[in-house]
Amino acid sequence: MFNYIRTMAENDSFPIPDLYHPPGEDLVLTDILFALSDPARLEIVRQVASGAVDMAQCHLQNPDAPKSTKSHHMKVLREAGILRNEPAGRGRLLSLRLEDLDRRFPGLMQAVLAAQS
Amino acid sequence: MFNYIRTMAENDSFPIPDLYHPPGEDLVLTDILFALSDPARLEIVRQVASGAVDMAQCHLQNPDAPKSTKSHHMKVLREAGILRNEPAGRGRLLSLRLEDLDRRFPGLMQAVLAAQS
Repeated sequence: MFNYIRTMAENDSFPIPDLYHPPGEDLVLTDILFALSDPARLEIVRQVASGAVDMAQCHLQNPDAPKSTKSHHMKVLREAGILRNEPAGRGRLLSLRLEDLDRRFPGLMQAVLAAQS
Repeated sequence: MFNYIRTMAENDSFPIPDLYHPPGEDLVLTDILFALSDPARLEIVRQVASGAVDMAQCHLQNPDAPKSTKSHHMKVLREAGILRNEPAGRGRLLSLRLEDLDRRFPGLMQAVLAAQS
């Protein structure tokens, strides 16, 4: 039964609705800047910048932060268009939307990722 | 009497304390990003980017915003280290701390200022 549902999810005629991601052309500069303005979120972006990361393996700087804090940060980053959050096997995979970000705001993510602190 | 006081203010032995500006080496990336993440503050930065502006001539996008909103935005931008806000004659002059910002976060302000919307 579990495998049956997974097969259905990969079938175009039965798409299971997944999390919303804004289209690349709709990214808003101030939303991007706000999403990056929190130290914990910036840390998540740095972790994902070098390659896609399993969401369960992505850790906040503060190990005592509740799970809801992590979900909230993921949501802000996804809704701003910074992270893609997709189902992968039984988990979820986080990746940086660097191509979309670069096209819309050239040089911005490079400058942010290169910055110290 | 008015001129006497102005003369005193320009005398090093009688410094009149002015607004706080963080030193260039203390600028914090997330504070900068937060300060730039508000559309009204970003608009102020764009106005000042092409040259110093008399604070009284610096207008918010929303003409109905109360004066306190403008002062608050100026404070956030100054405390983050983005704007210098200095007395000039009877008014105050706002300028972008581009050199300090560039030294600390190379390419960041260029990317933000070049971005559309």
